[in-house]
Amino acid sequence: MRLATIRLKNSGLESATAAARIDADDSATAIEGFADLSELLQNPEWEELARTANGALLRPEGDDFAPVVPNPGKIVCVGLNYANHIREMGRELPAFPTLFSKFREALTGPYDDVFVPEYASAQLDWEGELAFVIGKKAYQVSEADAENYIAGYSVMNDYTMRDYQYRTLQWDQGKTFEKTSGFGPYLTTTDSYSFGSALETRLDGELMQTTTTDDLVFTPTKLVEYISHIVTLQPGDVVITGTPGGVGHARKPGVYIQDGQTVEVSIGGLGVVRNKTVVQQDSTV
Amino acid sequence: MRLATIRLKNSGLESATAAARIDADDSATAIEGFADLSELLQNPEWEELARTANGALLRPEGDDFAPVVPNPGKIVCVGLNYANHIREMGRELPAFPTLFSKFREALTGPYDDVFVPEYASAQLDWEGELAFVIGKKAYQVSEADAENYIAGYSVMNDYTMRDYQYRTLQWDQGKTFEKTSGFGPYLTTTDSYSFGSALETRLDGELMQTTTTDDLVFTPTKLVEYISHIVTLQPGDVVITGTPGGVGHARKPGVYIQDGQTVEVSIGGLGVVRNKTVVQQDSTV
Repeated sequence: MRLATIRLKNSGLESATAAARIDADDSATAIEGFADLSELLQNPEWEELARTANGALLRPEGDDFAPVVPNPGKIVCVGLNYANHIREMGRELPAFPTLFSKFREALTGPYDDVFVPEYASAQLDWEGELAFVIGKKAYQVSEADAENYIAGYSVMNDYTMRDYQYRTLQWDQGKTFEKTSGFGPYLTTTDSYSFGSALETRLDGELMQTTTTDDLVFTPTKLVEYISHIVTLQPGDVVITGTPGGVGHARKPGVYIQDGQTVEVSIGGLGVVRNKTVVQQDSTV
Repeated sequence: MRLATIRLKNSGLESATAAARIDADDSATAIEGFADLSELLQNPEWEELARTANGALLRPEGDDFAPVVPNPGKIVCVGLNYANHIREMGRELPAFPTLFSKFREALTGPYDDVFVPEYASAQLDWEGELAFVIGKKAYQVSEADAENYIAGYSVMNDYTMRDYQYRTLQWDQGKTFEKTSGFGPYLTTTDSYSFGSALETRLDGELMQTTTTDDLVFTPTKLVEYISHIVTLQPGDVVITGTPGGVGHARKPGVYIQDGQTVEVSIGGLGVVRNKTVVQQDSTV
């Protein structure tokens, strides 16, 4: 089953959205009473409510898609998590996952333009990532039980300002610029996604990153175990699982996203996130 | 004016709380219609509502105090921010603030016991910090205007698992253990706090950290400018401004909080956070 958060442009309320089930013909059926998937996932019966929904029939396309889970309580980001990429860098596989954070304000729709203030536009980079979303409150959960706590999977571009990322030892400030991380288009429930599909990132159509999602050092279930032994994962929380080799900053010379260029991240079975970058020349510090 | 979030133990609802104004005699007057300060700060009239409140009169003490702002959308943490401490370490003053994150689940009341699972108890450390809370949505705000966006100040112990902090290059996982960071007891509004008072941290009464709050390299107004040029700061968001010298991990040999010990962080004019650590022997990975 695929779910999404759909913007209702004709509602008269610019920001009004609806939680929806996406059916085989790509139509969307509103899940009545829930403005978005963040709200829906707070209801323990979210899966049954979605499966049996028969609200308004919508035909979403393009920027009708909002960030699929627009208001996560937390977004946990994982670094250095693809085995091939770590080995090709000559490093040992890590004993512990590297965790950092992104704030919800960094999210944008899967097909939205990304507006970047000029002062932050020097080193714009892509990071195609598999995201998963928590479906049930999880604290001190074992890896064996963890799949029961995952609602489903999605796609995110962990859009990064490399100069800000490396201004200090801590990366967060380069990872959380306002409305830059395309997220969606769907939340595909765990029963509808098989690990091992291709993750590909393209810059204006040129393939820049490619891997399969079964090459993760720390799998989603392992991450639920690890993180939930630190802090409670709540319904609607998001974990993004790291990016494979091929980012622009690691190339010689470095390649960065330019004004007007489009980054596309696709994961087989989950869909595509495609965002054009627009540098705003009039923004200054 | 001092505000707080008070637990209502006699309400029959274990988790029920009320936003309250704390008056000169330390009594609390409920601000009706608001369960806590996170809710209150969503209302643009929060300051007037608090000033004129005349709800139920409460006499809070001890663990009646909940985390003062219990549900921030984000908690931005600043590292390496006290000038004397940086200079005594022989380092240059930084050009940019070091930013990392704590999740809201890490917060606990200012006088609550902190329960730590045994697997995380090897290197428990204190970090006494000045916190400030956002009172108005802030995006691309200048330092000169920033004070208008700060609701007030409070005290936090940025309780840290040093072994987890240094497992990887990114610190977040050592900074966000469940219900470990005492926060409160009051939100003291900007008009009622003068910079330069003493910040002191004590372990079982012994003074471990001392500074004055006017020694920050990046002041609260500078931090609002810097962070708000990255991402929107929302009402109720929290920024903690870094800790001075004297943490346990930097001592030779290292000093760590032991089962049963109490850490007290006090800031003149803002109050005290005092939490006893209790290691839970039966918690295992």
